[in-house]
Amino acid sequence: MKKSALHIARAAYQPKLPLGLRGNVSVKEGAPTESVADQEEIKKLFPNTYGLPLVEFVPSEEKKEYPAINVGIILSGGQAPGGHNVICGIFDELKKQNPANKLYGFLMGPGGLVDHDYKELTADIIDEYRNTGGFDMIGSGRTKLEKTEQYESGLKIIRELDIKALIIIGGDDSNTNACVLAEYYAAQNAGVQVIGCPKTIDGDLKNEQIETSFGFDTACKTYAEVIGNIQRDANSARKYWHFIKLMGRSASHIALECALQTQPNVTIISEEVEEKNMSLDDIVEYIAGIVAKRAAAGNNFGTILIPEGLIEFVPAIKKLIAELNDLLAVKKNEVEGLSIAELRTWLSKNLAADNAATFLSLPEAVGNQLALDRDPHGNVQVSLIETEKLLSEMVGEKLATWKKEGKYVGKFAPLHHFFGYEGRCAAPSNYDADYCYALGASAGQLIANGKTGYMAIVKNTTAPAAEWVAGGVPITMMLNMERRHGEMKPVIKKALVRLDGAPFKEFAANRETWAEQTAYVYPGPIQYFGPTEVCDQCTVTLRLEQGK
Amino acid sequence: MKKSALHIARAAYQPKLPLGLRGNVSVKEGAPTESVADQEEIKKLFPNTYGLPLVEFVPSEEKKEYPAINVGIILSGGQAPGGHNVICGIFDELKKQNPANKLYGFLMGPGGLVDHDYKELTADIIDEYRNTGGFDMIGSGRTKLEKTEQYESGLKIIRELDIKALIIIGGDDSNTNACVLAEYYAAQNAGVQVIGCPKTIDGDLKNEQIETSFGFDTACKTYAEVIGNIQRDANSARKYWHFIKLMGRSASHIALECALQTQPNVTIISEEVEEKNMSLDDIVEYIAGIVAKRAAAGNNFGTILIPEGLIEFVPAIKKLIAELNDLLAVKKNEVEGLSIAELRTWLSKNLAADNAATFLSLPEAVGNQLALDRDPHGNVQVSLIETEKLLSEMVGEKLATWKKEGKYVGKFAPLHHFFGYEGRCAAPSNYDADYCYALGASAGQLIANGKTGYMAIVKNTTAPAAEWVAGGVPITMMLNMERRHGEMKPVIKKALVRLDGAPFKEFAANRETWAEQTAYVYPGPIQYFGPTEVCDQCTVTLRLEQGK
Repeated sequence: MKKSALHIARAAYQPKLPLGLRGNVSVKEGAPTESVADQEEIKKLFPNTYGLPLVEFVPSEEKKEYPAINVGIILSGGQAPGGHNVICGIFDELKKQNPANKLYGFLMGPGGLVDHDYKELTADIIDEYRNTGGFDMIGSGRTKLEKTEQYESGLKIIRELDIKALIIIGGDDSNTNACVLAEYYAAQNAGVQVIGCPKTIDGDLKNEQIETSFGFDTACKTYAEVIGNIQRDANSARKYWHFIKLMGRSASHIALECALQTQPNVTIISEEVEEKNMSLDDIVEYIAGIVAKRAAAGNNFGTILIPEGLIEFVPAIKKLIAELNDLLAVKKNEVEGLSIAELRTWLSKNLAADNAATFLSLPEAVGNQLALDRDPHGNVQVSLIETEKLLSEMVGEKLATWKKEGKYVGKFAPLHHFFGYEGRCAAPSNYDADYCYALGASAGQLIANGKTGYMAIVKNTTAPAAEWVAGGVPITMMLNMERRHGEMKPVIKKALVRLDGAPFKEFAANRETWAEQTAYVYPGPIQYFGPTEVCDQCTVTLRLEQGK
Repeated sequence: MKKSALHIARAAYQPKLPLGLRGNVSVKEGAPTESVADQEEIKKLFPNTYGLPLVEFVPSEEKKEYPAINVGIILSGGQAPGGHNVICGIFDELKKQNPANKLYGFLMGPGGLVDHDYKELTADIIDEYRNTGGFDMIGSGRTKLEKTEQYESGLKIIRELDIKALIIIGGDDSNTNACVLAEYYAAQNAGVQVIGCPKTIDGDLKNEQIETSFGFDTACKTYAEVIGNIQRDANSARKYWHFIKLMGRSASHIALECALQTQPNVTIISEEVEEKNMSLDDIVEYIAGIVAKRAAAGNNFGTILIPEGLIEFVPAIKKLIAELNDLLAVKKNEVEGLSIAELRTWLSKNLAADNAATFLSLPEAVGNQLALDRDPHGNVQVSLIETEKLLSEMVGEKLATWKKEGKYVGKFAPLHHFFGYEGRCAAPSNYDADYCYALGASAGQLIANGKTGYMAIVKNTTAPAAEWVAGGVPITMMLNMERRHGEMKPVIKKALVRLDGAPFKEFAANRETWAEQTAYVYPGPIQYFGPTEVCDQCTVTLRLEQGK
């Protein structure tokens, strides 16, 4: 395999470990824990894994002996920078404990466990992937581990390979499922530990115990690089408005972090749109207002960040989609075979009056997309909607109206971008490389200490890596009951952007200045070898959340 | 102005100069030159600037005295990484010659000269922009300096500011215009020197004398970074075909260089399409063939690079566009007010038979775009066509046909990207930072030595910077006569990708392997501080062209 010069040079990077994981390790256990809410129900659902203590790994004088074990690992869900380093951290920790330890990777996600598709991860494989992006070492997948048959099928290969513990690297859902699996195996006395690891570029898996999910840092820095470059272009050409959509299915953490790093003229935060009950027209009016203000100052250019999940946070559209999903399912026979024009008429008569009004207010192409493009479950495919183009079209129309009314004088030339796949598999920043490696080592220590139903964590990561604090948190501690597909389920609460949180407040305090002035910041590409203030910084979000 | 950590750290970088420009400089002159073609006509058009010698700057023992002068500078055309460093190089060279020297920047391109819009570039301004991307220090513009009134208007402000020399930083057209301007002022005995500088990310301003245009290196490395990240994602998710369009109005140098850096599964080179007289369907069949072959091996994923200018290099479409432009202009009255369906019918009857067939073979949306979207001159707006979507749609149709015929088994899920604005204003790589700074210093030396009608050049740039060779080339040497808008004009020949050149041959020798195997290379982000094999490399194109 041909490698780039950076790929080769970067392989030699030795991720920095917290002091607590460097030499001999001992475990400091806290008091029993409770779930964040619904304690009675959660306790009843997780009799074997509820109430466990928080654990922390601290340096020790004593060298322990570890019996040889085999461990299995699974990557679950979307790629995030640093996944390979979690695996490398586990591998190195296992080999440190006992050179006879073995690590198996299940292939293409949780499906690999169910289908018995795996490979042993030996030193030569591991060394090929140190500090690289991507999940290609073993692949990932979206199969959900939710059914007893899956657990039992998994148990067969676990027995066959004599695996003592399974590590599942994933987002909130995957870690919830890891917890259910841990409880299942514990209830069966199967002798199989299950450990989770917090992964997602979306940044929505965080709480009192988890400072951040891995990959968020690298992905945001990669997006901020190209946003910064586009801003420099906007400020040089002085004639384009760049509408930039950013990946992040639901929460707006990525858009917010990129805004804090680059100071664009406009950033829409979905959670604020929902909280303020804004309509699409409110958003359009807000953007158009800034375009007009800048035009009045002679600046017919700018940048606008739009979170991918926006459309579903607009309350009126959310409501419309909900009714569309129901209505088109129930009246399937009635609408089949209708032309798009007929379907539009039918919908305008059959939707509730407010939803019909919302439907008709949308640009025709978007309305048609909502009405026609359904996934195999019959649901509207919201992710197909090109929100960046929808908004720029509507802003253009608004400005044209204002121009006629004499309220706006200027030129409006929009360009569109969507960044997502550019960042999910970037090679991890030093922060993510270190963080992931430490998470992997933590997971290895949790296993060595017989823990199950835990997630590996590393805290205090705004400090230099030596001062980071590694440990584990019982996953049950993070659960609450939520309605999913009509049923109450124990789940890890998704962390949306908090409007009373320090990152949003920092953004809100500055956005008017950023809108009117051209206050762009140009972060440039991720650096691996330079001065520490360039190379070893966490996200602005995390720094502000930690009050640093 | 708030600056990123990298922005601050990078400002301290001292670009490396060739030995010949470091201390005292003397000039080595070659023999008289001739234009590359059409010598008689060019000589007649440029009696005062034809036949000048090549010059080279070499170290000297003797310290020269330089009288104080004022210099003006203009950025022309699209942004390219390193433009600010050219200006910094000129500034430092001028101040080295005589601290009383002054540098004026004309604002927003050549229009600034004509409209007398300028600012003096003092040390505090210059220091703000060292090693930064963008053209925002003085802005750029696309006004063409072609008319006597413009030259005369420019002369007024030149006299007012007592400017001795003008430096024009631009692409092939801008440098051609610089040459015409140099000749005009020389013929008038105006005492104004004009010096050009080779700029364009497209990489199509190069020849025997110019190794590369500045910005090409940084832009390609930035695109290669994100292409590499997408490839890692493709290879991890294993379910998407990424169609990636790359900026570059005409030549395919960017696509070729990115292919050499990242080894994607498919790269289309416009020049080859034209040379082989390929139809759109030939291209589609070629791509679909590779998709099918990979699918047969279980690989339903891949990456495809598409040069922005492709569509105009497909001979049949080029011909269709030419007739459309003529026909719709001549029959304007006949087609006005027709619905799109009526226009399609009208065209199918009025176009020449072969063009009508081409027109009807296009996906309807693209045909409509060709027929309807015209620029103010009535021409088809080829750049609006989303070639990446056009091709993926047609490939999808082809595969569907093959599936029915049993020739293809697989899933085809395309995703689309367009990279351009992400790279034009990136902060320059070490190569571009050094190259541009040296070009600027060369321009300063050309001025000090009384040269006019020259372009600043730096050669031997595959070697370490100390061994680079700086000098100047008479622009007339690069001219030939070409038909432009119906008239024969002296122009610098645009350098398209040569199918007999080493870069294309390297690509062609490997593309079958890259298509079938997954041989992706992941270049990662531009590094500024690391080992020299990571940070100080030129493009693969240049290395191969120089036989290194």
